[in-house]
Amino acid sequence: MIKAVLFDTFGTIVDWRSSIAREGAAVAAQKGVADFDGDGFARAWRAGYRPGMARVTAGERPWVSIDVIHRERLEEILPQFGLPMLDEDERDHLNRAWHRLTPWPDSVPGLKRIKSKFLISPLSNGSVVLLSTIAKRAGIPWDFIFSSDMHRAFKRNPAVYQNAIRLLGMAPDEIMMTAAHNDDLEAARKEGMRTAYINRPTEYGIDQKVDFEATSDWDIIADSVEGVADGLDCPKI
Amino acid sequence: MIKAVLFDTFGTIVDWRSSIAREGAAVAAQKGVADFDGDGFARAWRAGYRPGMARVTAGERPWVSIDVIHRERLEEILPQFGLPMLDEDERDHLNRAWHRLTPWPDSVPGLKRIKSKFLISPLSNGSVVLLSTIAKRAGIPWDFIFSSDMHRAFKRNPAVYQNAIRLLGMAPDEIMMTAAHNDDLEAARKEGMRTAYINRPTEYGIDQKVDFEATSDWDIIADSVEGVADGLDCPKI
Repeated sequence: MIKAVLFDTFGTIVDWRSSIAREGAAVAAQKGVADFDGDGFARAWRAGYRPGMARVTAGERPWVSIDVIHRERLEEILPQFGLPMLDEDERDHLNRAWHRLTPWPDSVPGLKRIKSKFLISPLSNGSVVLLSTIAKRAGIPWDFIFSSDMHRAFKRNPAVYQNAIRLLGMAPDEIMMTAAHNDDLEAARKEGMRTAYINRPTEYGIDQKVDFEATSDWDIIADSVEGVADGLDCPKI
Repeated sequence: MIKAVLFDTFGTIVDWRSSIAREGAAVAAQKGVADFDGDGFARAWRAGYRPGMARVTAGERPWVSIDVIHRERLEEILPQFGLPMLDEDERDHLNRAWHRLTPWPDSVPGLKRIKSKFLISPLSNGSVVLLSTIAKRAGIPWDFIFSSDMHRAFKRNPAVYQNAIRLLGMAPDEIMMTAAHNDDLEAARKEGMRTAYINRPTEYGIDQKVDFEATSDWDIIADSVEGVADGLDCPKI
């Protein structure tokens, strides 16, 4: 019997690519940058995400939050996108665009349904302020928040899943992990958790190379959070 | 400028004494126990709370969650209240009465107002499942939850306040601690946090010995969460 359902956030619940493209384009317009490629900017920024976390996970640098990794990657790409003139406040504000990501249309309606039967929380690489700010702006009704800075580790480090299980004080198979990324679910299944896959084939746009479909027999396979709610027999609201 | 407001929960947000008295009385009635003293039961149970945490804080035993401390104290007092016959499931259910505590009448309206301007969270000795279950049942709209099991420490251990400040990535004076207990605020102020006191003179009933009034010049001194909302200039909702 499932008691809690955890969710990856970037890509699974929120559409980071269009959110970041929009914020980048707004800054570029304000600075008079012509021919700004908002989608390319979002994809280039995101391309620093996994390598940035990998250095922490490999022990090559001490723990830093995802906000620091986002900021370092932003510094790298600002010149190539014609925005080297941004001052500290402008860079800080733009970096917090990751705190203002907007959900996919099915996310909030689906989460409300799942919340009616289960405890719901992100299990995300975001920081607690990032995740709670996104939720507050978007009306995502998390029961609580598991952020990477609470675990001081990033997925797919097994410590993240183990720590979540320990904090919940539940049997692993009483907890379901939901993600649009097969490797996240593989890591959760290794710890004994149940799994739900949501297909988000447009998450990375032209950069997307994997996760066009479920690559294993996950407990639920769906195209939306509403689909996961259906799979969990959650009532319509 | 304050960005986040944290709240003690037991006594400050929820009225544990009447909630526990009610649940105890219901079990006693079901078991046919005559002359059951519900209020005494609640006070006796709570009397194990601070000593139980103190042993962990002193390093006399390894970390255990508050659910374990609650359960151990329950075992001690069941015989003296005429309830030695409870089986494992009944004891477990009664122990989770702490997950079903009800808020003071001013708590949810006040928290909604404060949430409209600030990030809000408990900073509590409760576990994450305890705190989120209380919130879910009562409609407490936390933005996120800081539980003792995330810090693996209980208040007033300075590590709890320090860890919260670190997780928020804010200056200490951008965070306000709210509590009905002067010593909780003293510990928060030592770490540089802002402070709000709520007077709850009936929390412990006839066992109450302290916290009938503010004993220092806390930033806000109020009689309710609504009063804290007033002190923070939060709009009426």
